Amino acid sequence: MKVAKAVTGLIEAFERLPGIGPKTAARLTYYLLHVPQAELDRFASAVSDLKRNTVECEICHNISETSPCDICDDPNRDKSLICVVEQPLDVLAIERGDGYKGVYHVLHGTIDPLHNIGPDEIKISPLISRIQDSRFKIQEIILALNPNMEGEATSLYIKRMINDQCSMFNIKMTRLAHGLPVGGDIEYADDRTLTHAMEGRREY
Amino acid sequence: MKVAKAVTGLIEAFERLPGIGPKTAARLTYYLLHVPQAELDRFASAVSDLKRNTVECEICHNISETSPCDICDDPNRDKSLICVVEQPLDVLAIERGDGYKGVYHVLHGTIDPLHNIGPDEIKISPLISRIQDSRFKIQEIILALNPNMEGEATSLYIKRMINDQCSMFNIKMTRLAHGLPVGGDIEYADDRTLTHAMEGRREY
Repeated sequence: MKVAKAVTGLIEAFERLPGIGPKTAARLTYYLLHVPQAELDRFASAVSDLKRNTVECEICHNISETSPCDICDDPNRDKSLICVVEQPLDVLAIERGDGYKGVYHVLHGTIDPLHNIGPDEIKISPLISRIQDSRFKIQEIILALNPNMEGEATSLYIKRMINDQCSMFNIKMTRLAHGLPVGGDIEYADDRTLTHAMEGRREY
Repeated sequence: MKVAKAVTGLIEAFERLPGIGPKTAARLTYYLLHVPQAELDRFASAVSDLKRNTVECEICHNISETSPCDICDDPNRDKSLICVVEQPLDVLAIERGDGYKGVYHVLHGTIDPLHNIGPDEIKISPLISRIQDSRFKIQEIILALNPNMEGEATSLYIKRMINDQCSMFNIKMTRLAHGLPVGGDIEYADDRTLTHAMEGRREY
């Protein structure tokens, strides 16, 4: 049976998205066949305008409507404290916590030699220039990368770069605490998390 | 933190799709921020052209490029045998089996009073007219609706309508066999499936 080209085209487009397999792609496409044309057009323009109506903030490289973004532009934010994250979604996650009052630096990825992503493909050198820029008076860098192999390697690389090229600024470097997640269960925690939680124990 | 409107707009559009929650919607949107504009435009036009470049077949109401569709138009198909299904995806699933040589009738839904879908909202009366149309000489109707409450209710309604309005045509009505799925495990089969499998047992 020949399936209409418009249908297979959209199924293939959905399949290219991460975490969407052929069955989900077909289900979404056939669902959209029952949706009014006006809503399809709204969806289509949301997709094609996504990058046209957003910019990367020239300071922190987060995705925003304006550059500098409203976090970098906020006078109540502590500009001397930078939290380095992998993705714009990580900024959203930390902002949800409402406890952090510094600014961010979005790397847009991690060093990942297996996928041909080296230090120049992500925003490491803009971070170094930002630290070297005397306007910002940066005092502390929080490395908030994911605790996996790529995140660890990238953290290490950034630490070395800052030690090499920014030693005169006397920057404090910290990283997020590892330990049991709140609401977690010791029984189900993995060895490394438990080791970190034990090492990082605090006075009670 | 204020998220760019173009970003929240697309997140909301994704969230409206079935089975996509707020976290997946955000993940897909931020993934698309890294995709070239040309690919975004292709995705967008695939969405907006979906319904423009497809039609409903005037005979079987399946989604197709032409009307009549290539199944209804195929001289090797047995036009006297109609398999009634809920959705175009069900046609794809049965065609994958490659054993069915009749034609289809797509209802585009089931009778579902809880969601205000009555018999007139789905393609039941076109099915009746199709049976009454002497050009097609229909002999058998296979009811291949999903074995859940809505599917059962819709099958029953169709059966009554055919008995009432098409009694002069002496139509044979059948339904798909219920039983253990191939590769299934008796231990994990539910009571009703086992009861159906027992009732429908065949000589070996």
